[in-house]
Amino acid sequence: MASSKFLLALFLSIAISSAIGERGPLKLSAVQQCRLQRLRAVEPTRQIESEGGRTELWDENQDQFQCAGVVAMRNNIRPNGLSLPNYHPLPRLVYIEQGQGYISITFPGCAETYEAYKVQRSRESEESWERKQKGSVRDLHQKVHRIRRGDIIAIPAGAAHWCYNDGHEELVAVSINDLNHQSNQLDQKFRAFYLAGGVPKSAQGEQNPFQNIIRAFDSQLLAEAYNVPEEIVKKMQGVEEERGLSIIVRERMSFIRPEEEQEQEQEQEQGNGQSSDNGLEETYCSMKFKTNIENRRKADIYSREAGNVIVADKYKLPILQYIDLSAEKGTLYPNALISPNWAMNGHTIVYVTRGDAQVEIVNHSGRTMMNDRVNKGHMFVIPQYYTSTARAGNNGFEWVAFKTTGSPMRSPLAGYTSVIRAMPLQVLTNAYQISPKQAQGLKVNRGGQSFLLSSSKRRQY
Amino acid sequence: MASSKFLLALFLSIAISSAIGERGPLKLSAVQQCRLQRLRAVEPTRQIESEGGRTELWDENQDQFQCAGVVAMRNNIRPNGLSLPNYHPLPRLVYIEQGQGYISITFPGCAETYEAYKVQRSRESEESWERKQKGSVRDLHQKVHRIRRGDIIAIPAGAAHWCYNDGHEELVAVSINDLNHQSNQLDQKFRAFYLAGGVPKSAQGEQNPFQNIIRAFDSQLLAEAYNVPEEIVKKMQGVEEERGLSIIVRERMSFIRPEEEQEQEQEQEQGNGQSSDNGLEETYCSMKFKTNIENRRKADIYSREAGNVIVADKYKLPILQYIDLSAEKGTLYPNALISPNWAMNGHTIVYVTRGDAQVEIVNHSGRTMMNDRVNKGHMFVIPQYYTSTARAGNNGFEWVAFKTTGSPMRSPLAGYTSVIRAMPLQVLTNAYQISPKQAQGLKVNRGGQSFLLSSSKRRQY
Amino acid sequence: MASSKFLLALFLSIAISSAIGERGPLKLSAVQQCRLQRLRAVEPTRQIESEGGRTELWDENQDQFQCAGVVAMRNNIRPNGLSLPNYHPLPRLVYIEQGQGYISITFPGCAETYEAYKVQRSRESEESWERKQKGSVRDLHQKVHRIRRGDIIAIPAGAAHWCYNDGHEELVAVSINDLNHQSNQLDQKFRAFYLAGGVPKSAQGEQNPFQNIIRAFDSQLLAEAYNVPEEIVKKMQGVEEERGLSIIVRERMSFIRPEEEQEQEQEQEQGNGQSSDNGLEETYCSMKFKTNIENRRKADIYSREAGNVIVADKYKLPILQYIDLSAEKGTLYPNALISPNWAMNGHTIVYVTRGDAQVEIVNHSGRTMMNDRVNKGHMFVIPQYYTSTARAGNNGFEWVAFKTTGSPMRSPLAGYTSVIRAMPLQVLTNAYQISPKQAQGLKVNRGGQSFLLSSSKRRQY
Repeated sequence: MASSKFLLALFLSIAISSAIGERGPLKLSAVQQCRLQRLRAVEPTRQIESEGGRTELWDENQDQFQCAGVVAMRNNIRPNGLSLPNYHPLPRLVYIEQGQGYISITFPGCAETYEAYKVQRSRESEESWERKQKGSVRDLHQKVHRIRRGDIIAIPAGAAHWCYNDGHEELVAVSINDLNHQSNQLDQKFRAFYLAGGVPKSAQGEQNPFQNIIRAFDSQLLAEAYNVPEEIVKKMQGVEEERGLSIIVRERMSFIRPEEEQEQEQEQEQGNGQSSDNGLEETYCSMKFKTNIENRRKADIYSREAGNVIVADKYKLPILQYIDLSAEKGTLYPNALISPNWAMNGHTIVYVTRGDAQVEIVNHSGRTMMNDRVNKGHMFVIPQYYTSTARAGNNGFEWVAFKTTGSPMRSPLAGYTSVIRAMPLQVLTNAYQISPKQAQGLKVNRGGQSFLLSSSKRRQY
Repeated sequence: MASSKFLLALFLSIAISSAIGERGPLKLSAVQQCRLQRLRAVEPTRQIESEGGRTELWDENQDQFQCAGVVAMRNNIRPNGLSLPNYHPLPRLVYIEQGQGYISITFPGCAETYEAYKVQRSRESEESWERKQKGSVRDLHQKVHRIRRGDIIAIPAGAAHWCYNDGHEELVAVSINDLNHQSNQLDQKFRAFYLAGGVPKSAQGEQNPFQNIIRAFDSQLLAEAYNVPEEIVKKMQGVEEERGLSIIVRERMSFIRPEEEQEQEQEQEQGNGQSSDNGLEETYCSMKFKTNIENRRKADIYSREAGNVIVADKYKLPILQYIDLSAEKGTLYPNALISPNWAMNGHTIVYVTRGDAQVEIVNHSGRTMMNDRVNKGHMFVIPQYYTSTARAGNNGFEWVAFKTTGSPMRSPLAGYTSVIRAMPLQVLTNAYQISPKQAQGLKVNRGGQSFLLSSSKRRQY
Repeated sequence: MASSKFLLALFLSIAISSAIGERGPLKLSAVQQCRLQRLRAVEPTRQIESEGGRTELWDENQDQFQCAGVVAMRNNIRPNGLSLPNYHPLPRLVYIEQGQGYISITFPGCAETYEAYKVQRSRESEESWERKQKGSVRDLHQKVHRIRRGDIIAIPAGAAHWCYNDGHEELVAVSINDLNHQSNQLDQKFRAFYLAGGVPKSAQGEQNPFQNIIRAFDSQLLAEAYNVPEEIVKKMQGVEEERGLSIIVRERMSFIRPEEEQEQEQEQEQGNGQSSDNGLEETYCSMKFKTNIENRRKADIYSREAGNVIVADKYKLPILQYIDLSAEKGTLYPNALISPNWAMNGHTIVYVTRGDAQVEIVNHSGRTMMNDRVNKGHMFVIPQYYTSTARAGNNGFEWVAFKTTGSPMRSPLAGYTSVIRAMPLQVLTNAYQISPKQAQGLKVNRGGQSFLLSSSKRRQY
């Protein structure tokens, strides 16, 4: 009894702290300048071509990304392409915009409990592989995760990871790297440590942070560390390597994942609100790294007339408590609106996935920072506390928003949960010099609608 | 059993962490320079006149405030004045120096469970109001809190709030805004986002951070968002607005607060040490935002000969755990002393409310940073770890100290709980080259007195 | 039941968070520049001579220490020397390299429950002391801790402490001060506040941060605060003080510590893994400040062929959770290797205690930052995420590593727990263009060896 009461109390406590957003990992962006002159929806400005695909980078020196303290990138991996193993000194949140594949996120000390080829007889490539391996020992490795369109994947700082496209179309992954996360004790420069491949020095400018770190080690020492002939280490160092950050694999790879269907079922259950996951029962090595935000049946905000929003926050994906990032997938029907609102707990980085919208962002001194039409492929930052609104175009509007907090909270200015509705009529009439009836209109004319507001055109007809 | 033991353990753990002060929200002031040359007690240097009152600001660019990472202000609201709704990207701690009124702190998503006018028939203005409203719907809004002299009020970052003076004298509120709080992912510039009113652009310099953010939005879009005629939005935007940050309301406002007496009783009980509040049992929407530090019967430190201190820390007001600020109200009798001491967990910002004192502050290199007489209305900073002492003048000394930590801890150099008393005699005799008898004197001559030390003049007579 | 399940869950949660390292106190070094050109093993560059010993300081302005955000020092206290009471605005982690003595870390408000001379009749100096004290009151003071070679001692920010060498050889203490710890709200300059002694102003340059803070206070006010004659305060202020930061005591000091044997027994038990200490059951005043990392029987990593490592992290010494520092003592046998690895949670500051090694450190852009032989007395920094390896010389290699995290975690590139072993064969063959057999060699040729790798020379013979 005492204990269940305590559990409840603890839950409330967690709810409080995250709601207020005053606790948990800290963001260092306060150190940076956010004295922005203008916000703009922009496309990637730099790209790195590799054998297995293309990496596109948004300009991290732009004011808006500096203020948010993030580096944004879009990875395009070709069918049968393998993004080479690497790690980075900051957490990354990935959205799979297109395609399917596998990802593995490696933690030191976790058991290699997955066998690479044994039961799975049905796939052709794998059988030919097995033939070649006749007599060799079975391969054991760490867990490999299936990824598909709509997945949000959290990659902790310092964890090595690789990714493979086993589908028939390009695998497109849009991601945000949080330079301000407290796990990063280096400075706020974006770095990645590649364990293979790497962009050749000749092909890169000063800014290129992608290199094979194995290349720099004494090959003799490494050979002894691995207890292998030095020529193997020399291959690992790939001095003549020109393949870049991703490669095309020689034979189609496949991985045994007996739990695959099981996992999907489980996710569906959780999506139905049955999850009792509180972030406590998972151990380090079996921690869940991903969740899907594509299925509208799992919407957190749903309006039959205006659209829907699906959230991936620390309650749905407990690792986001440590990563202190989150994401949402939103859909706005043609001409519908997003209530003017401000984010209480972090910056919002919006990536447009479909359609278009007119977006307006206002700063504290009542200045319009942005009032532009944004289109597919655009990215822009809504700084914390800045008030923003949007109206979808005639074809609707879809977006993915990354947030620099694990427990995002919005304060809307219009609609059922708005601050205006929370104020007494007398405060409104006096503050705005309007009649009680007009004030009442401000409070209730949107009825039960919150955040997503239907188009008045639609309603009028 | 296991659980109660665990509860105990958790309590101890919390006690430990806060005592050591190494955990909890982080302050970014480390980033700033604290290479102070001199500390000075100062008065506000800038003021903004509004219809409903006057806002006075201390110079945030002064070294001492830069080091502490705070912006200090004093709001004077006239009788019947309404401080307009606004929010700021940093937590604020308010001390009500004079007067009484109402405050409401709005959180998105909390229910509007308070009716504005229904039972309360006794007040005249309200009845006239009701007459006008005949037939209109009842108004529901979020909780409104009574405030009075001696209250400490915590306003979380990003929460919209307004304040109304329903008393007969000016409502005077002194507050500290913490620029370094981790909830702030913008930079360390003080900002406020006003939802109404605002200082006209013509009337303000570059530095004025107070503006009506609604003004910048497209009025047509806002009209659609609220589903009201555009002319109402134009009034909200108040382009011709000249009333500033606070206004005089046309009719006296009143709010139903059935729990008013109940609340006071409850506070009294808590003051008697009966509180079992551990910060866990409150939910987000019913969280307590204030406590009173005026009642000497609730003193945390009490000396019949020297004075008393009443503390508002995270144990008394759990929200201060997330806000990571705290305050104390102190009274020193004529000629009594504060033991030389250093603050272990944060900076101290002292505001003098009555009388005067001679204050001495010393830095790490044994340099006197301040040795001045301070008077009513003065404010000064005692940086973390700097050792300070004070002797009250002939009329005594009263102060409110704001602290940039939710769990303040002092280490006194003299008195019962001092570090000198905690050292073996042999260490003292050798360190100071004094006799054991003299060392013993240093340790025990103050008897049971701690922190607050009576005047020797007084004791001698 | 519910509660024990909850306890388990909580433990897992703690394990997760620390493993990922995304939670807990924050380091501010992200603010600093870590754009290092070169890492070098260096010796102290500055020293301060005192009556009781010598303080040696590493150059805190060197890039590598700036990046790590630490100030490193080595205190040498002569037999019968007393390091004078002082505190500093940042946590310090101390390793006792040589000798034995006593330390006391004072907390305000904790009871003085130790008597200085009463039972202990056996020691000569103490008896003569007692003779002199005839009739004086018994002395009570806070706990005094025995320290000896191999101890790791955690000193919280703001806590006054002193240290006495009662042995026959110099007491040598190597320590790290963490400028970036969140408890420090001042800037990132190293300061110490001395309560006695202090380096005379004449004898010091601008940089000398060591001063007697009592000296600056008005002596009359202090005399009243202590209720002692002003001449005693004048002695405390030691205007003519030339003894520096440590002194030689006139008579041998001794302290009653009835629990001394008991304590050692207890430690041994804990070393045997019997500890159920989870950081919760300790109260503030009885908190454990030290642990020993010298005893190889307590090794956390042990290889009969390669060496051993003993860790002092937050699980062994709970105060390290708040201090957010940790340490390890390592021994490498002649020609043995440390697997190439990167630290996931913090910087590593290595101090060589015996022997020598060839150390190689590589940064993210595949550049060799260091490839040098390091010897006894050298110190160098391995920045977070940088990959490093070492090969012991012909006489073996011993080191103490300080880490700017309370829960250090390494990710090795070679050996049983390495990321290479965690990857599927197919990923390795494709990434490195090697045969499955060669890939299998990379994964398994080190057998069960992890982190510490035996010399192949040794194994070959």
